[in-house]
Amino acid sequence: MAAYTASVTVRLKPGVLDPEAETTKRALERLDFDLDDLRSADRFEIDLEAPSPEAAAERADAMAERLLTNPTIHDCTVEVEPADPAAGATR
Amino acid sequence: MAAYTASVTVRLKPGVLDPEAETTKRALERLDFDLDDLRSADRFEIDLEAPSPEAAAERADAMAERLLTNPTIHDCTVEVEPADPAAGATR
Repeated sequence: MAAYTASVTVRLKPGVLDPEAETTKRALERLDFDLDDLRSADRFEIDLEAPSPEAAAERADAMAERLLTNPTIHDCTVEVEPADPAAGATR
Repeated sequence: MAAYTASVTVRLKPGVLDPEAETTKRALERLDFDLDDLRSADRFEIDLEAPSPEAAAERADAMAERLLTNPTIHDCTVEVEPADPAAGATR
């Protein structure tokens, strides 16, 4: 078993209204920043022990499906990296 | 000028309480998932036109500093990629 960090990024599907992103985009424009579009997403960084990166990704996928996403409105991507020991130690 | 997507990930600094992450972690454990830790973060994906990836990163950094983060409680990372034309077209 090795320690991995699975990053689950949960985005709204195209076409789903995102008032937080709209407001943030307008606020940046009022501050004179030049941007074409802005999307907001939630990210969960999950530390877990697994026999392989594939097994870690599979478990994180299952977590996303059961709890972290609503498949009606969300798309989600999962990335797995070996855990950063420094990150774990400081939290 | 080329189109880039800058992804700004805003994390709570170590030591800042994160009740959302605590609750999510406990809910996953109640669903019999095995995990060591969970951190939540916000992510902003910003489409912008810039002369170079460095210029895009610099502008996204400035946006993070002015509006997207609170430096007292947040750390932030910026990644820049060439824009995915498909993502822009569907939104």
